[in-house]
Amino acid sequence: MQRYKAIVSYDGSTFSGYQIQPKARTVQGELERALGMMHKSEEVKVTASGRTDAGVHARGQVIHFDSPLQLPPERWLKALNGLLPADIAVVEIDSVPSDFHARFDVTGKTYKYFLYKSKVREPFKRNYATHFPYDLDVELVRAATSYLLGAHDFTSFCSAKTDTDNRIRTIYKIEVVENENEVVFSFTGNGFLYNMVRILVGTLLDVGIGKITPQQVESIVNGRDRALAGKTAPAQGLYLWEVFYD
Amino acid sequence: MQRYKAIVSYDGSTFSGYQIQPKARTVQGELERALGMMHKSEEVKVTASGRTDAGVHARGQVIHFDSPLQLPPERWLKALNGLLPADIAVVEIDSVPSDFHARFDVTGKTYKYFLYKSKVREPFKRNYATHFPYDLDVELVRAATSYLLGAHDFTSFCSAKTDTDNRIRTIYKIEVVENENEVVFSFTGNGFLYNMVRILVGTLLDVGIGKITPQQVESIVNGRDRALAGKTAPAQGLYLWEVFYD
Repeated sequence: MQRYKAIVSYDGSTFSGYQIQPKARTVQGELERALGMMHKSEEVKVTASGRTDAGVHARGQVIHFDSPLQLPPERWLKALNGLLPADIAVVEIDSVPSDFHARFDVTGKTYKYFLYKSKVREPFKRNYATHFPYDLDVELVRAATSYLLGAHDFTSFCSAKTDTDNRIRTIYKIEVVENENEVVFSFTGNGFLYNMVRILVGTLLDVGIGKITPQQVESIVNGRDRALAGKTAPAQGLYLWEVFYD
Repeated sequence: MQRYKAIVSYDGSTFSGYQIQPKARTVQGELERALGMMHKSEEVKVTASGRTDAGVHARGQVIHFDSPLQLPPERWLKALNGLLPADIAVVEIDSVPSDFHARFDVTGKTYKYFLYKSKVREPFKRNYATHFPYDLDVELVRAATSYLLGAHDFTSFCSAKTDTDNRIRTIYKIEVVENENEVVFSFTGNGFLYNMVRILVGTLLDVGIGKITPQQVESIVNGRDRALAGKTAPAQGLYLWEVFYD
């Protein structure tokens, strides 16, 4: 058996999330179906760096799987992309040592969140960015990000459904870039809790419209209470952008 | 009654085209449904600059309709965009003289066609541009466009289904712009026959890959036979970009 590592891009708009579920269209389900077809319907289990929710996109999701097939990357790409639906593509694939693990070996991830500012909503962006028709003070947002950098208990910024006890995560870098009518948030950290990026964005938007001050973000972090933070920003603006390994 | 002119943008991906049809989801159907809701379910007929096919997009479709309501543009936009589905938006609306006609008064139109070049197809572009994994010589394509400019009988470049006798149209301008991995064709003319832009693109792509020479385009025009021209390029790359009036 050979272990393979693949980078996968998908448009999450019409998936019920990454993780396989009975009777729902999922990214994992489609990947395993395509791999099954390449392996005479033998089941091939796929392990990802982590899940993504319904409507959330990926530019650089990473998966691993094992196969008896020894094919060069070009042939894997051609075969898999021929079998996968149009809203998933395998972008890169390589053979890796058999102890590589797409989830356990992650050293960091970058998520991006896209907003577009316009008075009238835009049909072409509806699934790919969040419409934000309010004035946003990007300098205030940037000032607030300083309270989020580094290692913190992010209990205030994760869904009540989070079943992890250890809620300490380290954020290495946050960027907020404004181009014309678009604002892009970029978060790089060693890991993110359930809904964490979307709640971080929802809270930073509260800062950007002046509902709370940048300094209040510090007390929201320290309060360790989901009720203190802002709303969970909608799924369609979120992209799993890159996953890092050593 | 007041006549209104509106600019409408729509993502054609999940519409069975612009024109209303029983039991199909159409742009006209959704516009008339939203207007009906604003007029206590009285029917409001919408007239567009022309139809677009299933999967074809519009950035600047123009429509007119008559209404007893006298509302300022801001209120029309808010009301209509609140009632329309997320894949249609009214971008601009203005009251116009009652003799304005969205179809008969058209003096020209611009269509754009988007291609993206990459080895692996891209999930986020699948509905919005056509994947073209071959080498394309843009200079050859540009050389070929010179045979299309001006007034010609475009019988070779329209679907057999075209029911117009007069197939003479004037193309004022053709641009072919290459940015990174994207190629955008732009056609401006006084009018376009059924499938004309898509057949023009299909033929220009044959030039760009060296299947035919730029000069052969001249004989294709002169031959007035659909069988001489290239394939009809796929719908998803095509956008009705702008409609002109005096």
